[in-house]
Amino acid sequence: MTMNTLDALFKPESIAVIGASSSPAKIGGLPIASLKEHGYEGQIYPVNSKSEEIQGLKAYKSIRDIKGSIDLAIIAAPGKYILEVVDDVIAAKVKGVVVFSSGFSEIGEEGARVQEKFVARLEEAGIKVLGPNCLGFMNLQNKVFSTFTPVIRQGITKPGRIGVVSQSGAYGAYVFALARERDMGLSYWVATGNEGGVDFSECVEWLANDPDTDVILGYMEGCKDGRKLERALEAARKAGKPVIVTKVGKTELGAQAVASHTAALAGEDAIFDAVFRKHGAYRAHSIEEFFDVAYAFSVAGLPQSNRTGIFTVSGGAGVLMADAADEYGLALPELPKPEQEKILELVPFSAPRNPVDITGQITNDLALMSKTMKLMLDSGQYDSLICFLAAGGMGPLAKGMVDQIIEVKQEFKNYPLTVVTVCSAETRSILEQHGCLVFEDPTRAIRALAALAQLANLSGDCSTSIDSELESPMDVFKLESKIYTEPEAFSLLARAGVPTSKAILAKSADEAVKAFNSLEGVTCVAKVVSPDILHKSDIGGVKLNLANQEEVRQAFNEILSSVSSNQPDADIHGVMLAPMESGELECIIGVNRDLVFGPVVMLGVGGIFVEVLKDVSFRTAPVTFVDAKKMIFELRAAALFDGVRGRPTVDVDALAKTIVRVSNFSISAGETLDSLDINPLLVKEKGKGVVAIDALMIGR
Amino acid sequence: MTMNTLDALFKPESIAVIGASSSPAKIGGLPIASLKEHGYEGQIYPVNSKSEEIQGLKAYKSIRDIKGSIDLAIIAAPGKYILEVVDDVIAAKVKGVVVFSSGFSEIGEEGARVQEKFVARLEEAGIKVLGPNCLGFMNLQNKVFSTFTPVIRQGITKPGRIGVVSQSGAYGAYVFALARERDMGLSYWVATGNEGGVDFSECVEWLANDPDTDVILGYMEGCKDGRKLERALEAARKAGKPVIVTKVGKTELGAQAVASHTAALAGEDAIFDAVFRKHGAYRAHSIEEFFDVAYAFSVAGLPQSNRTGIFTVSGGAGVLMADAADEYGLALPELPKPEQEKILELVPFSAPRNPVDITGQITNDLALMSKTMKLMLDSGQYDSLICFLAAGGMGPLAKGMVDQIIEVKQEFKNYPLTVVTVCSAETRSILEQHGCLVFEDPTRAIRALAALAQLANLSGDCSTSIDSELESPMDVFKLESKIYTEPEAFSLLARAGVPTSKAILAKSADEAVKAFNSLEGVTCVAKVVSPDILHKSDIGGVKLNLANQEEVRQAFNEILSSVSSNQPDADIHGVMLAPMESGELECIIGVNRDLVFGPVVMLGVGGIFVEVLKDVSFRTAPVTFVDAKKMIFELRAAALFDGVRGRPTVDVDALAKTIVRVSNFSISAGETLDSLDINPLLVKEKGKGVVAIDALMIGR
Repeated sequence: MTMNTLDALFKPESIAVIGASSSPAKIGGLPIASLKEHGYEGQIYPVNSKSEEIQGLKAYKSIRDIKGSIDLAIIAAPGKYILEVVDDVIAAKVKGVVVFSSGFSEIGEEGARVQEKFVARLEEAGIKVLGPNCLGFMNLQNKVFSTFTPVIRQGITKPGRIGVVSQSGAYGAYVFALARERDMGLSYWVATGNEGGVDFSECVEWLANDPDTDVILGYMEGCKDGRKLERALEAARKAGKPVIVTKVGKTELGAQAVASHTAALAGEDAIFDAVFRKHGAYRAHSIEEFFDVAYAFSVAGLPQSNRTGIFTVSGGAGVLMADAADEYGLALPELPKPEQEKILELVPFSAPRNPVDITGQITNDLALMSKTMKLMLDSGQYDSLICFLAAGGMGPLAKGMVDQIIEVKQEFKNYPLTVVTVCSAETRSILEQHGCLVFEDPTRAIRALAALAQLANLSGDCSTSIDSELESPMDVFKLESKIYTEPEAFSLLARAGVPTSKAILAKSADEAVKAFNSLEGVTCVAKVVSPDILHKSDIGGVKLNLANQEEVRQAFNEILSSVSSNQPDADIHGVMLAPMESGELECIIGVNRDLVFGPVVMLGVGGIFVEVLKDVSFRTAPVTFVDAKKMIFELRAAALFDGVRGRPTVDVDALAKTIVRVSNFSISAGETLDSLDINPLLVKEKGKGVVAIDALMIGR
Repeated sequence: MTMNTLDALFKPESIAVIGASSSPAKIGGLPIASLKEHGYEGQIYPVNSKSEEIQGLKAYKSIRDIKGSIDLAIIAAPGKYILEVVDDVIAAKVKGVVVFSSGFSEIGEEGARVQEKFVARLEEAGIKVLGPNCLGFMNLQNKVFSTFTPVIRQGITKPGRIGVVSQSGAYGAYVFALARERDMGLSYWVATGNEGGVDFSECVEWLANDPDTDVILGYMEGCKDGRKLERALEAARKAGKPVIVTKVGKTELGAQAVASHTAALAGEDAIFDAVFRKHGAYRAHSIEEFFDVAYAFSVAGLPQSNRTGIFTVSGGAGVLMADAADEYGLALPELPKPEQEKILELVPFSAPRNPVDITGQITNDLALMSKTMKLMLDSGQYDSLICFLAAGGMGPLAKGMVDQIIEVKQEFKNYPLTVVTVCSAETRSILEQHGCLVFEDPTRAIRALAALAQLANLSGDCSTSIDSELESPMDVFKLESKIYTEPEAFSLLARAGVPTSKAILAKSADEAVKAFNSLEGVTCVAKVVSPDILHKSDIGGVKLNLANQEEVRQAFNEILSSVSSNQPDADIHGVMLAPMESGELECIIGVNRDLVFGPVVMLGVGGIFVEVLKDVSFRTAPVTFVDAKKMIFELRAAALFDGVRGRPTVDVDALAKTIVRVSNFSISAGETLDSLDINPLLVKEKGKGVVAIDALMIGR
């Protein structure tokens, strides 16, 4: 039952404030003032060694002096007293503490050591710790203001169903202020500070199970435990609660000199992106987007699909919105012909396809609005509707227009309906009460609706492997700490179910000829086998197109002589013979072990796409078949898989299965796998499979 | 003197309203009511056959009855009377007319004919015509409300220095309403309607020369005369007035079956993009961006460069803004070390690089703000500053913070200073009066500042060719209406200064051998020459790597026999011999004749980049050397030109010169050139030039 562990922290029935102050401007005074001002119903116990009374409440010299039970202790005392205070709160049997005090890991190693020590002591006593160096939290429903952010001195926002978790205090405060200005209701607001105890992921997971929260807004700067984050996001997805997250700090890929493509390309930002995609979180790239999506979800819920109808009184705005829909991924199916004809009967000069431009004609007959919008929704083509009224929301016809919209919305309750107009706060509020979204900017309206459609799509996508073969128990792999030679890597990959080139190691020219014969005389490639040589071609270590025994023998000898003169110290295991393979497309599948997220699987199309365009997609392992297919179609080069300009369609299913198998292999090998590059993996025509023709595997 | 031609229209000293009405709700009544209400100082003459008096003014039966001189006639009469009304206004010697009336080109061909007729009649009489079917215009300075948009019934915006031109009435009205809500001052507002007379470009050009306008907001749906648009944008650039334009209607490239890459890729939207880039107009993709950029320019002017300093009280917001700066193209140079040390002396736990995160410490000492910001600007590293105050703009310290900011701004007047915070309308207004920008959303602030930097950069970039050789007079080309064979195309291109492969046409095997010998025995390629064969390789019309006379002879014979059996009706001119060429990069340079803009030059990198990624850049001809270089670096594949993963840097200058020469050729050939594809143009290592090895030229 992890779900309730933070209850005592976030829903306290009694609160002690250590370092309590009489001044609401002080960090030990503001929580008391706010709890009182906003009507917190539990007990408040100020603790201050020098006062009898604080803000009209009896004050205690020590928390140990308090008779009643205490759920939460707020520690606002200077950091240097922390160890004594910790002894006191343990003695007082509190269930949770929030530590405002600073001077810990944020100032360096010495502070970090003290932090580790006091948090460990509290956790051993079964006490949950938020902070230190944090702005605290608010529970708007129960009026718990366990925070010293000055932003609440200008007023609080109403209770609502949006939970906010921020790793930055100042940023969190800003989000709170904006929520208040936009009149958006919050359930909880948490700033996690140094995360000595409770972290971002734990808060998200708790909110995923909190009955008062419908949607979670997260602000992240970093993450120490990737699996915990993934578990939290998955909990929210299973609970059907959208997570809208802003993660800052995109790292530059730079020109790192590393042996593996995957390691070079697996920048932190790309991996976070992959994690959010995998678990259906929506990544917002600005505060505005963050709020717009949360607002849209809170007011309108999720549509069934991304199929949208646009009703407009301006052709120009219609085209602008159609352009934006294309950019953000909303589909605008055309209205069926019979409905188009009915609309043309109503307004002969309308444009009835979609966008449906009914023209300024509505100013003569407002009922055209509801007639047209109902026709659109009745057609069954759309799961949501956007209605552009230009400046109509403020004019003399505003009231009539609002009535028309509400009439439509009441008949089509489960269809998000977005109104784009300028209007008064009152008009906006009426529309919102009826479940309609209101935006001033058409592009923002489209972006928000597209985000809802994306969230709807992601939340419905918890399916795992569709291929039982992929779920069968697999070998346990335990790698050695070394660079594997190609035949060794091939053999491990083959055991993991990855189709590889048939490679035979030859230690002499005679063995090479024998190997050639055993491959039944197909044209072969010969490559030197050595853990010391990563770039075989550069030093004459590869010979292609060997068609007969004589060529094989000669290739063997030339390779050995070229390699030994170029790299005399290399440990040569021999020469590998393998059939020349051909395919339609060269892909790269790689695995890199990320410090935070563990094995991360990468897919790219070989050559320029990876090297110049950095066109790759990622998923943390395990990767399901469905996710593997998404990885393929996330690539900018995706068109190549469908066949383009006369090329055949390639075997996408076989490629996706191979991604899953590589992912399974990486899970099984666990910490013993450092990195793996299959480069290239040849993908053949549809139905003809894939084959790995080169592999670099490094154990650790 | 084109600049003053619209004065009488837009700055009338007397106005007649034909079809005047007593009701301000009617299209013939609203202008009169608005002119009176807002204090228009000129004469107003209502014209109405049935009334003696309208809205307290003497009314006239006909415009012919008016004694005084009339600058502007507003025609609000039903469209069916237009020809009579036109006779009257000509007789009354008006200087301009605005035609509200509808029923013309917007309803079909018959309407278009009438429109053409009446506009021609007015123009012959020297009268400027705005409309028909237009919402009219406003001149806010002189209080001319020659419009019937109901949006002005909810109030007007203040006079200011932003000119608005919209091809859509409803969209224009929406922009007006939003400007009013944001309290942004306008100089002129024009809705051009059917553009029977005055069009979008003419309005932009007039505003470019209007002393009351500093910045032009344009909304476009289409354009009939591309050169006129380019001239207008160039006039604005020369006048130093930013043009911020929204152009809707991105066309799908689709899978058109056309012979030329350039024609297939030169979608309308890409060409408009190229035109805006060429002339320094800023293309906004949403109304919000449209306004943000106009607002930023009006309040802050242009920075000297894109080098920006970020001052923040939240590390998180700092990183978010740094990410956005990277995305939108602002540079964030690091603060020099000595200044960093001074900042660390002020606040030991600050992050002093850039963003400079001074932490919540400012709440203890507001003067840290001005000290830090001045240190940053004094360092000489920055031409603008962004200051993130989180929710500080509303708190008890708001007044003190504003004083700090104003102090900095007064010392650094020419440096745009953007404040990101939530604050009251009053605080915002104080900051703006001092020339500071205020945004709530950090990302929007960055985007707007990046737009200013881009406008500053573009406005300084009127330079033309830097290479006198490129400006020398060139041959006059006049093409025939036919598909040119490759040797013919090569010969024309060579005359135009484009390096081409040495191609020799051979009509017999003996001639082929002779040609081979004259090429001094270098390895050659042989290609069939026929205007009827576009895809030579597909039917055995190309033989590569011919190294001796025998191979040449055999190739000649094989080509002829293969081609004549595959395409027996083709007109075969012979076989072309040319040296095998090699280069580092295969490019495509194309020209397509656009109906609106004339010759458009395209650049792409051959193969997958063009075919799969549609990675191409465009410019309308003439293309300067500077613009040609921009075309190269606009490509997503730009990294290829700089050498990537061990490849050499290629001859970018030679490529840019070739683009200019192709552009000059297309100008000289003018309407006789239908299209040209040089595919590929081999680009060699730096200093070694380029060479065209295949060309398809079509005359018309």
